[in-house]
Amino acid sequence: MSGTAEGARNNQVYLKQVPQGLLGPDDMEVRQAPVPEPGDGEVLIESHYLSMDAALRLIVRDSKDFLFRVEPGDLIRNSIAGKIVQSNHPDWAVGDYVVAGVGVQNYAVSDGTGLERCDISKAPLSAWLGGYGVSGLTAYFAIFDACKPQPGQTVVINGAAGAVGTMAGQFAKLAGARVIGIAGGPEKCAWLVDELGFDAAVDYKDGDLYEKLVEAAPDRIDFIFDNVGGHVLDESLRWIALHGTVLLCGSTSQYSQDEMAGPKQYIWLGTMRARMQGFVVFDYADRFETARKHMSEWATAGKLKFAEHVFEGDVQDFGQAFHDLYSGKNKGKMVVKLPAADS
Amino acid sequence: MSGTAEGARNNQVYLKQVPQGLLGPDDMEVRQAPVPEPGDGEVLIESHYLSMDAALRLIVRDSKDFLFRVEPGDLIRNSIAGKIVQSNHPDWAVGDYVVAGVGVQNYAVSDGTGLERCDISKAPLSAWLGGYGVSGLTAYFAIFDACKPQPGQTVVINGAAGAVGTMAGQFAKLAGARVIGIAGGPEKCAWLVDELGFDAAVDYKDGDLYEKLVEAAPDRIDFIFDNVGGHVLDESLRWIALHGTVLLCGSTSQYSQDEMAGPKQYIWLGTMRARMQGFVVFDYADRFETARKHMSEWATAGKLKFAEHVFEGDVQDFGQAFHDLYSGKNKGKMVVKLPAADS
Repeated sequence: MSGTAEGARNNQVYLKQVPQGLLGPDDMEVRQAPVPEPGDGEVLIESHYLSMDAALRLIVRDSKDFLFRVEPGDLIRNSIAGKIVQSNHPDWAVGDYVVAGVGVQNYAVSDGTGLERCDISKAPLSAWLGGYGVSGLTAYFAIFDACKPQPGQTVVINGAAGAVGTMAGQFAKLAGARVIGIAGGPEKCAWLVDELGFDAAVDYKDGDLYEKLVEAAPDRIDFIFDNVGGHVLDESLRWIALHGTVLLCGSTSQYSQDEMAGPKQYIWLGTMRARMQGFVVFDYADRFETARKHMSEWATAGKLKFAEHVFEGDVQDFGQAFHDLYSGKNKGKMVVKLPAADS
Repeated sequence: MSGTAEGARNNQVYLKQVPQGLLGPDDMEVRQAPVPEPGDGEVLIESHYLSMDAALRLIVRDSKDFLFRVEPGDLIRNSIAGKIVQSNHPDWAVGDYVVAGVGVQNYAVSDGTGLERCDISKAPLSAWLGGYGVSGLTAYFAIFDACKPQPGQTVVINGAAGAVGTMAGQFAKLAGARVIGIAGGPEKCAWLVDELGFDAAVDYKDGDLYEKLVEAAPDRIDFIFDNVGGHVLDESLRWIALHGTVLLCGSTSQYSQDEMAGPKQYIWLGTMRARMQGFVVFDYADRFETARKHMSEWATAGKLKFAEHVFEGDVQDFGQAFHDLYSGKNKGKMVVKLPAADS
């Protein structure tokens, strides 16, 4: 049985060249292919939402240092949320919703490996890519397991209006900490406080960031939740507390740089006996269900919001959407909602 | 009673200017003053050894960020080892040996605050500035408390031929780890292996450091003991092991730079779930005696060497000695031995 519309075609987005500066539509090439046919033991997935993830900018770099890369001529790697529309696989039925790492295209065949089942009664399908998905789980384990802020402690979150930052800030509030967000522009800052309940927000584009952090966090910063690296991290490091922690979650400011810069103020780690530590959410995979149970409960109780920025378009808009993401146009997780989306 | 020679003068070394590049004699000014007279409750200390510490280069920088600074016109801050030659203080007798932070001069008056008593039956006076002093204690607590390497794990120590590095490498060997030193030049590297028992040594001045580390540490690096920062740290970070640790003990390669660079490869902390942590030896002050007991026992048993590079001179040679230190001419702790030294 086929669930694809007659005459449906599969648009696919390939990397055309190693980008200079921001990654955008000019670095990509859209190709059209027939909708593939699943074989025995395979399913056909129809994409409904494209996840927009800043880390893509890192793996399109021309470097041998990364485990994963997207090279010119490759289909762009990406997570999507979608629906099974044909199935020759015993575990999957037509109509099942999934998250899948099948790249930027409308349709993909899968043998089931790595597919994640989405119960959309628990969270909307798009949220499985964001707050209820990897972004939210990252924030959850980073805050509740790696950082464990105590009531009265101060957590500074940069990239605070982003997919992970919005969740991390809300979790740190639930932990009882004082939460300060760093974001770009007064509108995002006001939104963090008014909509997501941050205690304060600092606009890194306006004035002296260090002075503003000293003002917002008079007792220094116990935890820096770092999504961006660069200058924003440097100025925060100068004000880290004794035995403070920098949790490294991303370095988005550096991914577009010809040469990535390290944290110039890392000498403060020594002075303040502080630590900077890496974190990978997949180490916690056996506890994802527990985390999601808590997240559902908080969301139902109105204590947690899955903030989302929906870009309505099709797969060929992926490049523009990515450019918007890197230009900081989003509040919350950005997704591209494709025409096939039915929820 | 006076223990100073008749007609003795007190040479003192002052900072003349904020240095550019290496700190050396041209940045300093030697002044002569009378030998001071201790008042009630005071002692007169005669300097026998000047400690040579790379961190001085950091605090002569023109920066507001440091807790301690030496500014042009200041007597250069420094630790010395010496002898009480006059005493009006009930706790100190003429002939007592001390370590004191009295700066670069032949004589100083002290009210006893911060003086450390040196039992030269336990270790030679000069060693109280180095292996038996802050350098050795730093290495001891960094290895046995902050890192705790296990048998079979790999420890890479940079600045390995320096005051802290020589001790850290020997302690890591005593802990049962595989120890790789990074140093400048084949002679130092051979010395680390032949004289101090390192398992291997890598010359960072010769060839591709990363490739050489991969060869010397095929199972990756569990602990990076970082004394130097910069390129040497960056190349090591690229080969850090899962859940590895970078212990930050110094950043000597950066102290002379106009703008200090952070660890450019810190992104590997994320990939490898590793941590980078600061460390300050004075947090362990209540355990110094225990550490020294162990160090004495190991030294007596021939398992530990207090490697030392003695520069024979007088206080006015401090600038040249510092220049030599930063040029990497020393193997082990560098001290300037002054004419008054009697042991």
